[in-house]
Amino acid sequence: MRFVIGVDVGGTTTAAGVVSEGGEVLLEEQSPTHGDGPDTSGATIARLATAMSRRAAEERLPVAAVGIGVPAIVDAAGRIGEAHHVADLTGQTLGPALGARLGLPVFVDNDVNALALGEWTFGAGKGARSLVVLAAGTGFGAGIVLDGRVVRGAAGFGGELGHVPVKFDGRACWCGGRGCLAVYASGRGIGEAGRAAAAATAGAGLRAAAGGDPARVTAATVFAVAAAGDAVAGAIVDEAVRALGALLATVVNGLNPEVIVLTGGVAAALAPLEPRLLAVAASHAFRQALASTRISIVPSDKRLTVRGAAALALQELRSAPANRRGHP
Amino acid sequence: MRFVIGVDVGGTTTAAGVVSEGGEVLLEEQSPTHGDGPDTSGATIARLATAMSRRAAEERLPVAAVGIGVPAIVDAAGRIGEAHHVADLTGQTLGPALGARLGLPVFVDNDVNALALGEWTFGAGKGARSLVVLAAGTGFGAGIVLDGRVVRGAAGFGGELGHVPVKFDGRACWCGGRGCLAVYASGRGIGEAGRAAAAATAGAGLRAAAGGDPARVTAATVFAVAAAGDAVAGAIVDEAVRALGALLATVVNGLNPEVIVLTGGVAAALAPLEPRLLAVAASHAFRQALASTRISIVPSDKRLTVRGAAALALQELRSAPANRRGHP
Repeated sequence: MRFVIGVDVGGTTTAAGVVSEGGEVLLEEQSPTHGDGPDTSGATIARLATAMSRRAAEERLPVAAVGIGVPAIVDAAGRIGEAHHVADLTGQTLGPALGARLGLPVFVDNDVNALALGEWTFGAGKGARSLVVLAAGTGFGAGIVLDGRVVRGAAGFGGELGHVPVKFDGRACWCGGRGCLAVYASGRGIGEAGRAAAAATAGAGLRAAAGGDPARVTAATVFAVAAAGDAVAGAIVDEAVRALGALLATVVNGLNPEVIVLTGGVAAALAPLEPRLLAVAASHAFRQALASTRISIVPSDKRLTVRGAAALALQELRSAPANRRGHP
Repeated sequence: MRFVIGVDVGGTTTAAGVVSEGGEVLLEEQSPTHGDGPDTSGATIARLATAMSRRAAEERLPVAAVGIGVPAIVDAAGRIGEAHHVADLTGQTLGPALGARLGLPVFVDNDVNALALGEWTFGAGKGARSLVVLAAGTGFGAGIVLDGRVVRGAAGFGGELGHVPVKFDGRACWCGGRGCLAVYASGRGIGEAGRAAAAATAGAGLRAAAGGDPARVTAATVFAVAAAGDAVAGAIVDEAVRALGALLATVVNGLNPEVIVLTGGVAAALAPLEPRLLAVAASHAFRQALASTRISIVPSDKRLTVRGAAALALQELRSAPANRRGHP
């Protein structure tokens, strides 16, 4: 029996664990990502991974590798692209230094790719040939696993479904695009729509819930005010449901995976609207394609993302060294 | 050296050829698909495949298998789904009967999947890890090849990119969906938009080009009238470009393939607008993702689709018998 260390790097919290080959998270630790200052997420990762390695040794659990999921594009050499929430990781290749320090191979990938691999290996997609994870949180990430392989694409952008246009003449997105799914169905997009609505005359309900200051409206405000029956907030939530339903259909008709996992804070907020969401997806998708795809809303859980990072390490260990990400 | 027979079944014309393992189409024959009546596409396929088999024998070319591309969803058992343009094939499994008649294994798949495999094996995607073919003709088909495997999905719908919503609150589509790409960027969709515009007061240019009868407007009318400077027809063409550009971005951001091949009659009609199309794609896609994807407009050519059907047969021959489509 061997074990791996999984590390999930979030914009706020970083979690690490020692994970068995069966996907069991045995030891766990969390820390604020930027606890020692904004530029120290690399130090946080190293500290947590080292702590896990030490604790595993104490428990006599043999650790074979480290997997790290980061909220950014990661190229095949393990180099981290623009990382908005962990800016000091941008351009870094964590593997070599951390690997030397721990005496273990270190594999790095996008966090939602890792989560998707974890769900495919151990979770909602276990036994399925294909799975897509849609992570609707502050941003909108996704991971695609087909026949056990993460679809990373030519430059690591595979699975960036948060920035596919669901309305080609829609609103401008912060990514520079237009009509992206994330504009409608991510926390950031819903918050922006809420603030815009709160600044208009009709947005009195949203304004009041934010203490009269439109700038203080967040996605959580929009969901709460909509749930209380406010029509303006309700329209924003309904637009999120329609856009997300359209994306579900894009995935169902375009890839027809056996399993779609919908997770993240926005997915959790939309869970009560699941029947409406599935009805929207059905209004866009081929009936037979939708019937052959199982859609699950799975609550966010740091254990799942840690397990995903571990699944990444386990998969890379099984690859021929020359085919490994970053070749550690 | 061995050879395979490739058969491409179209709504109007069916083409067959004897193809080398290097992708060379050596002998070729075409026939109207429904030459002997609307219900006889199966007979046309059998006749052409038999003729190819006989001619190959005359030329002493040893044939190992037959690959057939059909304009429909095909499930893993080789059963053809709803085939709008070759209705008599719906529900059929061509392999067993034709295979027994020819004494050869027969493999059947969706025509654009076959074309994508052919382009990946022999054409624009040769040497690439991943390729997506977008075939914009009367309808809109697509095929996705990742790491040499066609993405067929749980029920054979993988790659149905013509019916992903590019505008979630857009126009109703004949598939029952809404805002599908095909509504905006297929011959059928452009023709429908042209007829609707020709029936309105502003559509005088389209009406005149169709001899005064709005019902006679086709996609070709729309392209011709737009090229002559008519603003109403131009707006329809521009909408097609914007929708197709958005789909290109969906593919680039969602799958980030190394190669995208755009083909079919509508793609040919849009070829003069390629700079505008790529600019629209760039306005939606991540810059680095787009930079890592090569986009080619490839003219439609029956040889390419015949070669694609042959590539399918060659790939299946290399698979373990138990993993073959339809297990012939």
